[in-house]
Amino acid sequence: MKNSNEAIEQCNNIICMIKPQTLKGFRDFLPEDALKRQFLVSKIKGVFKQFGYDPLETPALEYADTLLGKYGEEADKLLYIFEDRGGRKVGLRYDQTVPAARVVAQYSDLPKPFKRYQIQPVWRAENTQKGRYREFMQCDADIYGEMNYLADAEIITLAAKVVEKLGFEEYTIIVNDRLIFGNIPASAIISIDKLNKIGEVGVKEELKRKNLDPQLLDTIRNNKPSQFLSDIVAAAKSLGIGKHIRFDPTLARGLDYYTSSIFEVVIDGYSAGSVCGGGRYDKLIGQFIGKDVPAVGFAFGFDRLLEASEQFSLLPKRKTSTQVLVTIFSPELLTHSLQLTTMLRNSGICTDVYYDDKAKLDKQLKYADRKGIPYTVIVGPEEVAKNVVKLKDLRARSEVVIASEKLVETVKKLTKSHPNDI
Amino acid sequence: MKNSNEAIEQCNNIICMIKPQTLKGFRDFLPEDALKRQFLVSKIKGVFKQFGYDPLETPALEYADTLLGKYGEEADKLLYIFEDRGGRKVGLRYDQTVPAARVVAQYSDLPKPFKRYQIQPVWRAENTQKGRYREFMQCDADIYGEMNYLADAEIITLAAKVVEKLGFEEYTIIVNDRLIFGNIPASAIISIDKLNKIGEVGVKEELKRKNLDPQLLDTIRNNKPSQFLSDIVAAAKSLGIGKHIRFDPTLARGLDYYTSSIFEVVIDGYSAGSVCGGGRYDKLIGQFIGKDVPAVGFAFGFDRLLEASEQFSLLPKRKTSTQVLVTIFSPELLTHSLQLTTMLRNSGICTDVYYDDKAKLDKQLKYADRKGIPYTVIVGPEEVAKNVVKLKDLRARSEVVIASEKLVETVKKLTKSHPNDI
Repeated sequence: MKNSNEAIEQCNNIICMIKPQTLKGFRDFLPEDALKRQFLVSKIKGVFKQFGYDPLETPALEYADTLLGKYGEEADKLLYIFEDRGGRKVGLRYDQTVPAARVVAQYSDLPKPFKRYQIQPVWRAENTQKGRYREFMQCDADIYGEMNYLADAEIITLAAKVVEKLGFEEYTIIVNDRLIFGNIPASAIISIDKLNKIGEVGVKEELKRKNLDPQLLDTIRNNKPSQFLSDIVAAAKSLGIGKHIRFDPTLARGLDYYTSSIFEVVIDGYSAGSVCGGGRYDKLIGQFIGKDVPAVGFAFGFDRLLEASEQFSLLPKRKTSTQVLVTIFSPELLTHSLQLTTMLRNSGICTDVYYDDKAKLDKQLKYADRKGIPYTVIVGPEEVAKNVVKLKDLRARSEVVIASEKLVETVKKLTKSHPNDI
Repeated sequence: MKNSNEAIEQCNNIICMIKPQTLKGFRDFLPEDALKRQFLVSKIKGVFKQFGYDPLETPALEYADTLLGKYGEEADKLLYIFEDRGGRKVGLRYDQTVPAARVVAQYSDLPKPFKRYQIQPVWRAENTQKGRYREFMQCDADIYGEMNYLADAEIITLAAKVVEKLGFEEYTIIVNDRLIFGNIPASAIISIDKLNKIGEVGVKEELKRKNLDPQLLDTIRNNKPSQFLSDIVAAAKSLGIGKHIRFDPTLARGLDYYTSSIFEVVIDGYSAGSVCGGGRYDKLIGQFIGKDVPAVGFAFGFDRLLEASEQFSLLPKRKTSTQVLVTIFSPELLTHSLQLTTMLRNSGICTDVYYDDKAKLDKQLKYADRKGIPYTVIVGPEEVAKNVVKLKDLRARSEVVIASEKLVETVKKLTKSHPNDI
């Protein structure tokens, strides 16, 4: 083994091994989890498409200059920045908003308004803790090139519809307009944004420590919605999601780039925090081309959405998309089993086959059970002679004997409760 | 603007701009391309699932030690390796085989055989040229824990079925077994593998330059298939793909980790090279845990598959998944248009609405045309009075007036040729 001089966990004259491990803050998604994730992604995509949004994909790596200084100084420290083999300073994307803004600036002939969604991983060199990872997925939708409040109303409605589509009934959309902060200093707003976390006393103490007037909290709490925000809320009401909206004058959102409306979606009963955040950021694209392009959108935090879906039992309870395992009775009957397998697969049934033609039947059934495959097909010499197959339901521990030509039809009927749509 | 001191393209007292640009070898996929990619991915996934494969996702970053020394020294130079903020030496994945092998080593209780597919981007610090990118997607399927030749036969069949599902009728699967190279030195095999590129004279000259016997080419060309390979080919025949298989004793495949059967899929008439490569690599997992686990699989190169699909016109010719644009006639009729929009969306029709309620109708229609939305709905005061809508077919330049309550039904019928399944 070569090149592993830094990699050696255990090395003597005979064995050199590299410890198989995942980096801290990074995750493997084994089939059961990957299937849940795909299920969620496909539901979310469906809603995005229904609202007329098309997909965009951007590279994992960007010029560091594209990323730096866009999120606020705190965030800059969380970027993965390095030098590539050509000496360029590059970075892994921190979110999808800045790369998408770069795209809108770069391809000026994109038809406007440009409505796109983007579902890709992002990377942050964060301290890891429960629910915080260094690689995680975001699901974004944004409208570029439209300053009308209706765009904000649609974005908020879209976020609401995603949440409803996933099956959450009780949720709240907290809205505010950054413009109503007026001349209040940014450092005060950062403290006031923590109201839900550290409470009134906490915020006022923090303001004092910053040599700011603690009464600023009360000033902000007494703010009324802006005209723009009132228009958005009225439109959202006519779009059917009005009862979920709550105005909160202390909502600030961390990222520097927001310029007006901001919002968060909170699922009632899910306590880890908001599952979605967004707002209007009309100045970001201007940083690339010197000419502002209005923009409004949101990002769903995929992990929280998944966790909340688990909590409310909204995910399918399946370990595999495979619906049937065809067993191999003996090497002599191999061809017969392969033909059945091909027949099932050709008819669209997700079919596995156990490829050790000398393995005992028990071992094959145990494999199906461990994998979570609901049905198994068994064909021994008796069955072949009678042109039938044995179809076993592993969960119900029952079996039926059916004519071979009825197999596809029967399996299709039975697996209706175990569709292959994930 | 802060932190952009290295980023400044043009900077004076008034404007600081960062040039919006993509890194060399990296690509943005705008909606039209992203839709094509999603279409292809969904077809490929469908076949993988039909064969009983479940998804796996691994992180973009791995410990550098996991990656180094697995691909051969040439490839090591193409890795993106850097130090993270915690001082760890990390790297972006170069393929999906090594991360998956790491997973199989790490989670020893995965039910075996473990059949997984993986569709994610990989990164290579290559010199860019036509068709060679630094970020590109691979579509992998592998079987872990099965040494039976039937596993190899299934993997080859699966690759063939993917190609068939995408609509390619003429293709060839070139197979070989590395074991038949016997004691022939690796450097000779590397030269002989170039036969198709540099021809017989070229190979023999290269062998001479390496001080190797040029007759080695003839020796290898006269090799017969191994017993293992003959068994694979026989099984693949009974699985219905026999006529596509061709034995080529000079096929070697570049990667160091293959141990026995190897194959490539070539689409007849597509000249850029093979679209898929794979084989058996029974020693890779052992590098992590000191105990070999048999493994066989393949990777489709997504870009070539896409390019070949374009060449053979196998991709949908659509610029958007959006099926209808609802126009807004005037601010007074805004609510009416929003209601129609919501009705269409709720019935599953992908619907866009033009959110500038003061924009001229012409501008709205032009937007639909540029975006490639096939139908538009127009409701002016006359239509509202009669409770009808005007439905315009932008491609046919025709329009019909229909009762409002027939809108959903009519659009569903019309858009059958423009489904939203991408």
